[in-house]
Amino acid sequence: MSEQETSKPVTAGLAIIGNEILSGRTKDANLQYLGDELNKLGIRMMEVRIVSDVPDAIVEAVNTLRQRYDYVFTTGGIGPTHDDITSECVARAFGLEFGPNPDAVKLLEDHYAARGDEFTPARQRMANTPVDAILIDNPVSVAPGFQVENVFVLPGVPRIMQAMFEGMKNRLTGGRKMVSRTVSSLVPEGRAGGPLTELQLRHPDTEIGSYPLNDRPGANIVIRSDDPEKADAAAKDVLQMLKDLGGEPVMQEPDDA
Amino acid sequence: MSEQETSKPVTAGLAIIGNEILSGRTKDANLQYLGDELNKLGIRMMEVRIVSDVPDAIVEAVNTLRQRYDYVFTTGGIGPTHDDITSECVARAFGLEFGPNPDAVKLLEDHYAARGDEFTPARQRMANTPVDAILIDNPVSVAPGFQVENVFVLPGVPRIMQAMFEGMKNRLTGGRKMVSRTVSSLVPEGRAGGPLTELQLRHPDTEIGSYPLNDRPGANIVIRSDDPEKADAAAKDVLQMLKDLGGEPVMQEPDDA
Repeated sequence: MSEQETSKPVTAGLAIIGNEILSGRTKDANLQYLGDELNKLGIRMMEVRIVSDVPDAIVEAVNTLRQRYDYVFTTGGIGPTHDDITSECVARAFGLEFGPNPDAVKLLEDHYAARGDEFTPARQRMANTPVDAILIDNPVSVAPGFQVENVFVLPGVPRIMQAMFEGMKNRLTGGRKMVSRTVSSLVPEGRAGGPLTELQLRHPDTEIGSYPLNDRPGANIVIRSDDPEKADAAAKDVLQMLKDLGGEPVMQEPDDA
Repeated sequence: MSEQETSKPVTAGLAIIGNEILSGRTKDANLQYLGDELNKLGIRMMEVRIVSDVPDAIVEAVNTLRQRYDYVFTTGGIGPTHDDITSECVARAFGLEFGPNPDAVKLLEDHYAARGDEFTPARQRMANTPVDAILIDNPVSVAPGFQVENVFVLPGVPRIMQAMFEGMKNRLTGGRKMVSRTVSSLVPEGRAGGPLTELQLRHPDTEIGSYPLNDRPGANIVIRSDDPEKADAAAKDVLQMLKDLGGEPVMQEPDDA
């Protein structure tokens, strides 16, 4: 596929919806999964917004991100309770009518009938989508997500979100994958920083990031590029630079995702 | 202090800066800490933006958040390496000159001299701030953060960020604290959802959120309010509602932060 061959970066944004993430009560686990999985597809996560369960906040985040990036994902707020308002906010963001999606209604009706359980009004809310939305299968708990244009609406519960992403990721077309090389050492950033700036200038087609260790001086220096050879060349220079500073740098296993 | 007595919510926004968080490579640990600590002070985290190491992205996030919320925190990007660009971006966001802060220079000069270590150009970068910024002490590794108006610039390494926040939190004035009550049960959200909507309407001064369990049907229903009595009253009704549905709900220990 020719698009796979170009080096134009394909980008994504993520809106994480929910007061419980903002309050610190619940720790988000979806960014890490999506950042990693999208990278494997050659799609780069560019921006994340964590917003509260307030309609204007959700609408603003969706509208900004969808105009700015190739793909947008939302997580959270599509369950059966009154605080689940993501779906109607996505409809509002697109100016689309919002109501029962016939396919979703059928799916959920059949599911609860098969279990001899009631298709309550709360559960019926989960069948509402913007008009003509394309459903996203939920192999775990049936209630679907949906896609409108470049926006993919997913649940917040990590194992359900992951199963649904797995089933829909064939809808995404990525660009060239970013590969990364990591060189770790106990050389303080304050000593490596100067030479590293020069190395970044000498390797303009790579992005060199330095991430300090949490518990002692030293850093992981990460070289990212969509060209594995350029990443290797820069990593080799970083390794040598750290040796020259008297360090004992270690090159981690290459991550070609 | 009279401001403590009013019920006007005091709000905060957070900009988390760094490609390594967006790629999924590093898991952010600062939101949870800050969300929780701010809540204890009666300050509510309203919005988080995770942005890449790109100047325009950082400037936009800082400028949007500082106009929208009472306090803004940034984490990440204030170290000695070329990819640490938060400080200069904050200066740009405020339209302030950026350069060596005399107090910060003195602190770092003395620190490296005492260790017999070199005050390298990379380390000198950590002494740059917007002009007249108020420094934030770093009891762990000396390099300070800083405050400009309502924006507090903190590092990304969690244990250093936490020590610095601890030392500066007396600069913050909170409002009434939100307290929370949590009622847990295995009653599916699809059955509790209808009655819960009515309960939310009957308890308008509380925020009732329902958070599904990750591994089985059921939910934690969280009632938040700045009035402990109103939170208790709503929690009691939620408990009874879940009993009426045949569940065996459990009221968790109250969280009065």
